[in-house]
Amino acid sequence: MGSTVTARLLKGFRDATPEVEVVRRTYLGRLEAVAQGFGYLPIETPALEYADVLLARAGGDAQKEIYRFHDHGGRDIALRFDLTVPLARFVAVHAASLPLPFKRYQSGKAWRGEKPQKGRYREFVQFDADVIGSDAAASDLETLALTARCAEELQLGPFRVAVSHRDVIGSLVRRHDSEANLVALMRVVDKAGALSREELIAALGEHTGGETVQAICDLLDTSGSYASEGNAGVLDAIERVVGPCEGVARLREILSLTGDQQPLASALQVDPSIMRGFEYYTGMVFETQLAQMPQVGSVGAGGRYDDLIGLYSSQQLSGVGMSVGVDRVVHALAEEQGLPDIRPGGDLILFCLDDALAADYQRIAAACRAAGIRTDVYPTARKLKAQFAYAEQLRIPFGLFYGEEERERGTVKLKELLTRQEHPELSLEEAIEQVRAAI
Amino acid sequence: MGSTVTARLLKGFRDATPEVEVVRRTYLGRLEAVAQGFGYLPIETPALEYADVLLARAGGDAQKEIYRFHDHGGRDIALRFDLTVPLARFVAVHAASLPLPFKRYQSGKAWRGEKPQKGRYREFVQFDADVIGSDAAASDLETLALTARCAEELQLGPFRVAVSHRDVIGSLVRRHDSEANLVALMRVVDKAGALSREELIAALGEHTGGETVQAICDLLDTSGSYASEGNAGVLDAIERVVGPCEGVARLREILSLTGDQQPLASALQVDPSIMRGFEYYTGMVFETQLAQMPQVGSVGAGGRYDDLIGLYSSQQLSGVGMSVGVDRVVHALAEEQGLPDIRPGGDLILFCLDDALAADYQRIAAACRAAGIRTDVYPTARKLKAQFAYAEQLRIPFGLFYGEEERERGTVKLKELLTRQEHPELSLEEAIEQVRAAI
Repeated sequence: MGSTVTARLLKGFRDATPEVEVVRRTYLGRLEAVAQGFGYLPIETPALEYADVLLARAGGDAQKEIYRFHDHGGRDIALRFDLTVPLARFVAVHAASLPLPFKRYQSGKAWRGEKPQKGRYREFVQFDADVIGSDAAASDLETLALTARCAEELQLGPFRVAVSHRDVIGSLVRRHDSEANLVALMRVVDKAGALSREELIAALGEHTGGETVQAICDLLDTSGSYASEGNAGVLDAIERVVGPCEGVARLREILSLTGDQQPLASALQVDPSIMRGFEYYTGMVFETQLAQMPQVGSVGAGGRYDDLIGLYSSQQLSGVGMSVGVDRVVHALAEEQGLPDIRPGGDLILFCLDDALAADYQRIAAACRAAGIRTDVYPTARKLKAQFAYAEQLRIPFGLFYGEEERERGTVKLKELLTRQEHPELSLEEAIEQVRAAI
Repeated sequence: MGSTVTARLLKGFRDATPEVEVVRRTYLGRLEAVAQGFGYLPIETPALEYADVLLARAGGDAQKEIYRFHDHGGRDIALRFDLTVPLARFVAVHAASLPLPFKRYQSGKAWRGEKPQKGRYREFVQFDADVIGSDAAASDLETLALTARCAEELQLGPFRVAVSHRDVIGSLVRRHDSEANLVALMRVVDKAGALSREELIAALGEHTGGETVQAICDLLDTSGSYASEGNAGVLDAIERVVGPCEGVARLREILSLTGDQQPLASALQVDPSIMRGFEYYTGMVFETQLAQMPQVGSVGAGGRYDDLIGLYSSQQLSGVGMSVGVDRVVHALAEEQGLPDIRPGGDLILFCLDDALAADYQRIAAACRAAGIRTDVYPTARKLKAQFAYAEQLRIPFGLFYGEEERERGTVKLKELLTRQEHPELSLEEAIEQVRAAI
């Protein structure tokens, strides 16, 4: 009999197989534990929202890429494309009952119908953590400290948290060419890493005059001071280019609050080339880059957005937050680097030597599970070769043998499946003890 | 300044506030740990699939209720309405690389545009666990044992796992009226609990003759034997009505495999009224009911489906599995019963007594977090009344005071916020030790 439907995935979508999913769950668990450690609260919001709610502040790309359609009741609805806009909507709806500041974390899927390309998918899992209702530098610092702890928990080697402030380039442009299109200039700077100096100058020159172009280049060059003079030196250099401004003052405050708090203190680098794409950012912006795996991209990025909640609420509430593209990290690792070695399956398998003993296998398995051992039972007395192949594919480290002989003697035989070392004639309690000691 | 967009939720959709979300996450974590304990592997599949893939075996309700639309590339796509159909599609796509039997668990959202009503929402989180590629009674038993462990982990009081087999009513109808519409009769029996005996007889009578109606009533009455004669008595009674059949034989085998394995052994009850709605079930069917909270509905239900994978694959693979409607349970509790008391927030709050000490608060918080204490920092030196109100709303049990005086002495003051007991003049290490001992 042939199949009636061709099983296939949509372009730009992926399944997570067990080896991938166990890593994703492990990462999410660690990130969530970090947020809990900072006292953040979990929430969840629907995947579907009214389209006008999601698109209230979205730029052209989101408009084009969003999955939008009409539901059974003719409503104009869409799938969320990030977790920040739904948070703003959530805060507006629940404002009266929320603690303020409201510190929340959330993990879940978002969808963008963008052109699929390496590392870009149309469905992705994000982890977000935000503080709503505090414009204090302490909340900027907390966001950075939390981001650095998240990057540390991913265990992907050294990283830097590159930080800037939207007001730095804003002040510069206001000073040199107050007519210039700031958003256009920010977009060019955002891509500066991929351009030669000549290309950068040409691209900037499309939007402003030579003096401003030179000032922007000088601004970008200030990050060169980091190696010799540290962040304080970079900030002094920025101030020499831009003049005293709110952005530099806030970054100095963040630096002072950081003190020697690790892992942030060693990772934090003021870098005026950091812009971040979203239009809603109004203050500090940052991204986290892996030193040894730049191809993974940012593993934690965000910034301050003090006008977003006001779109949905008469209450003006500031916001600052970060986001980790967990899926992107996991799939980049799978493709480039190899996934961390986390076994998804059981610790112990009960081989089925005799279908007549099936009830005994169930009884033994229950005892092993009660002792905290993840215990798999092979369901039928297929050839042992097939059962071994199953255990090997799942990389289950221990196997338990129990046949007619063992039943008569009241024993079990334990085998370490990697080394093939056998421990016959054990009581079940002894076998459980051995496995527990090893896992 | 007024808001520009009205923040609102779609009808039939809910936000999960922190008190709800922390319970949902706790439940999901426990259910996932049970599945891991049985050696099951995690996977994830996309929320969006080709509509023809999702609807391959769906009945009329799913057709009507599914969220279906065309994407940017004109593809006919839809949101998944359960996790079982995507599993069948997943198995067909990845068959070559999967271990068999393939035991998988998955948790995630599904969507149905059904009429919103009490306890029914258009978006819901499910937890599923299934075994693919084993038609053994041992896999039926494992599914029931796992279900009973899941129900136990929800900690909602006593429960029963009511089990039947599709072949029981199938054999009965074949014997008495092989022309009758079995699916229609099953639908009536599925609703029998809400009908009087007269209504039941009338409803059955629309689809078959009096002799068959009587036999079905006799079949349903067999569950009365449970109190005096246990499951073996019910099965004997069923056999007297239906005659020897595959369904009774398989249920006897499951019973024998159960032995005295708890919590299943005490919870398992053969009940021929159990039908389950989905058309894809072919063997054992079951549902789990809470004794003290019947209004919560089934907290774990499922069955065997041996023809579903074959829709997508030339390989015929049997399946058996269970599903917990986690969202339904959580929201039913929130409405009826009160949620279990799980605090979502921090263990300790650092009150901000002086903005000039902000860097010290960050340093102290980092030390507390490193010691495993979930530590919140109030970001600015607002009035203490406001800071206390924040801590009270989050039910944070400990507060730490550190002002100019403490800074000079090198001490902190710890306060138990519920009892208002104060511990002044502690070293930071002593305070950390006290909080750790209490949490």
